[in-house]
Amino acid sequence: MGCAVRLLLPVAAKRLTTARRLSTSTSPPATAVLYDHHGPPDQVLRVAELPAAEIGDRDVCVRMLAAPINPSDLNRVEGVYPVRPPLPAAVAGYEGVGQVHALGGAVDSALLSPGDWVIPSPPSLGTWQTYIVKPASAWHRVRSDVPPQYAATVTVNPLTALRMLQHFVNLTPGDTLVQNGATSIVGQCVIQLAKLHGLRTINIIRDRPGSEEAKDKLKQLGADQVFTESQLDIKNIKSLLGALPEPALGLNCVGGNAASVILKFLRQGGTMVTYGGMSKKPVTVSTSSFIFKDLSLRGFWLQKWMSSDKVEESRTMIDYLLDLVHEGKLKYEMELTPFSDFRLALDKALGKHGSQPKQVLKF
Amino acid sequence: MGCAVRLLLPVAAKRLTTARRLSTSTSPPATAVLYDHHGPPDQVLRVAELPAAEIGDRDVCVRMLAAPINPSDLNRVEGVYPVRPPLPAAVAGYEGVGQVHALGGAVDSALLSPGDWVIPSPPSLGTWQTYIVKPASAWHRVRSDVPPQYAATVTVNPLTALRMLQHFVNLTPGDTLVQNGATSIVGQCVIQLAKLHGLRTINIIRDRPGSEEAKDKLKQLGADQVFTESQLDIKNIKSLLGALPEPALGLNCVGGNAASVILKFLRQGGTMVTYGGMSKKPVTVSTSSFIFKDLSLRGFWLQKWMSSDKVEESRTMIDYLLDLVHEGKLKYEMELTPFSDFRLALDKALGKHGSQPKQVLKF
Repeated sequence: MGCAVRLLLPVAAKRLTTARRLSTSTSPPATAVLYDHHGPPDQVLRVAELPAAEIGDRDVCVRMLAAPINPSDLNRVEGVYPVRPPLPAAVAGYEGVGQVHALGGAVDSALLSPGDWVIPSPPSLGTWQTYIVKPASAWHRVRSDVPPQYAATVTVNPLTALRMLQHFVNLTPGDTLVQNGATSIVGQCVIQLAKLHGLRTINIIRDRPGSEEAKDKLKQLGADQVFTESQLDIKNIKSLLGALPEPALGLNCVGGNAASVILKFLRQGGTMVTYGGMSKKPVTVSTSSFIFKDLSLRGFWLQKWMSSDKVEESRTMIDYLLDLVHEGKLKYEMELTPFSDFRLALDKALGKHGSQPKQVLKF
Repeated sequence: MGCAVRLLLPVAAKRLTTARRLSTSTSPPATAVLYDHHGPPDQVLRVAELPAAEIGDRDVCVRMLAAPINPSDLNRVEGVYPVRPPLPAAVAGYEGVGQVHALGGAVDSALLSPGDWVIPSPPSLGTWQTYIVKPASAWHRVRSDVPPQYAATVTVNPLTALRMLQHFVNLTPGDTLVQNGATSIVGQCVIQLAKLHGLRTINIIRDRPGSEEAKDKLKQLGADQVFTESQLDIKNIKSLLGALPEPALGLNCVGGNAASVILKFLRQGGTMVTYGGMSKKPVTVSTSSFIFKDLSLRGFWLQKWMSSDKVEESRTMIDYLLDLVHEGKLKYEMELTPFSDFRLALDKALGKHGSQPKQVLKF
């Protein structure tokens, strides 16, 4: 009866016809990327077969479709992340998308059925494997008419961008924000989301070969202004604002000088949010920036925010972001690499092949 | 009739018997400390006689009793403060206490009468002179049964301490705060006010001869723990907390390493407020402090806060602080120096005579 009802839903046509309803059963054996101790990812990660896992009454077995290699995934393997999995035999990966393969006997079939696309939400460790068994409540059904690499990556980067635009400063159309690391995926999402909400963006990128092309690309996404760091090495940085109002919000994922220039751009009473530190340099702030300019400095960590009582709110935001992807309003470059070429994808993610698009494993 | 009513008030006995009610008149000539251009205070400040000033209908002429030499007064003279007076012939000084000398004809005698003690509230430039004429609304009547040096100094330091305890973090009895520069007057006020509100304090002071005596003195004021900076040069700084909870609030008036140790002490989600930079070194913050430890960094500037719509609130707080002084619950060391010895007081304030108590000019 549940199935009959679901056939009326628009997405029903996309579902697998071979519905599996299991009271107790097991998942297929999975192929996974594991590590037994922390260290350099290209040394400690290994691909292995895992035995079939039991599917409990309230569990859902998902066949993974795609999962990205994010820098924070590599940090977790290295052991430099504050949250560590139990070792040995930890499965790497944190976000991804899969397709419902089998439901435990007590799972409400109005919520999930075989063939549905789902993401772990909040994300959780162990997405670099072909089959995953988790409680139904851990999965969030998402639309399946977007490229799988977007559903696989919607949480860590786009949701961070959206949340940072909403959480710290009450921005209204016409307001400006300034960010460094603007060519990152978060940076590109910030530009597009800001544009959609009538906000202006000042974007700071590194000085390197190809920076002119990078500027053009960001402007095509909607960036109002793009500067390389060396262009900002002037006395009166605010003269570069032109007709833009002084920014109320700054987003920092670099640190060091790239953070200092954000502080210079900010208006009286402005806020800078740090969410990364790509330069591995700290943030340095003058006393007068705090006292006379009344700047506030904050931090944002998606994993912490999502682990609080924000699951429903974050799922609604994810649906919104995937709607934007579907409408062609949110895009960023990725490369799908077959899981069988995991070593190649890892080397690309580690920068061994020069600048490469975000690597997304296709299972 | 106004006078008859006021005689019923407890403070009436202290008022001058020679009430002056003037429709238009002038102040006595004043002796003032002036500067004509910015520079080293001992070079640019000069003592001069000013001509009598007109007392308008809504003005009050005040004979100054006492005014401190605060470090920020010297910064203003040096020209390193963001708010600058019109030059030449700017009168120095920012806070102080005086006695009502004469009222303009339209001043409500229920509010002020000759002999009342008043302070400029919010404070304003030009307190280092013997007579000041300002609109009645610029003066706040304070109790006259405390030593004049406390009424003269209640705003810049004690009010900063009280405001910082109330404004940034919702502290409840049992909570801990950590501060550097603890021997400063703000630091001493923080210790005493925290104690009164059931808060615990961790206090950081400089390494220098006499630091053991300084520790004892702060503990007598109510400090729970006092460390010199060198004692904090250890790996696990939190082992020093003992039974105290991790601090939720940090107060920084030093910068550099003394700010870094505050950040190490703070609990997850804690806030550090910068209100001074005595070391002239910036604040340096790691990326992980923002992201994983979720620290917030803010600034506080009393002058900015009081220039907003906080005049009534700040006056109520000042009354509370002077009540504490009267009850013997708030105290700090000062030295009253006769105005005729202004040069000596200035030299002491500039550190030319070694460590000296806060200098308060007695007119």
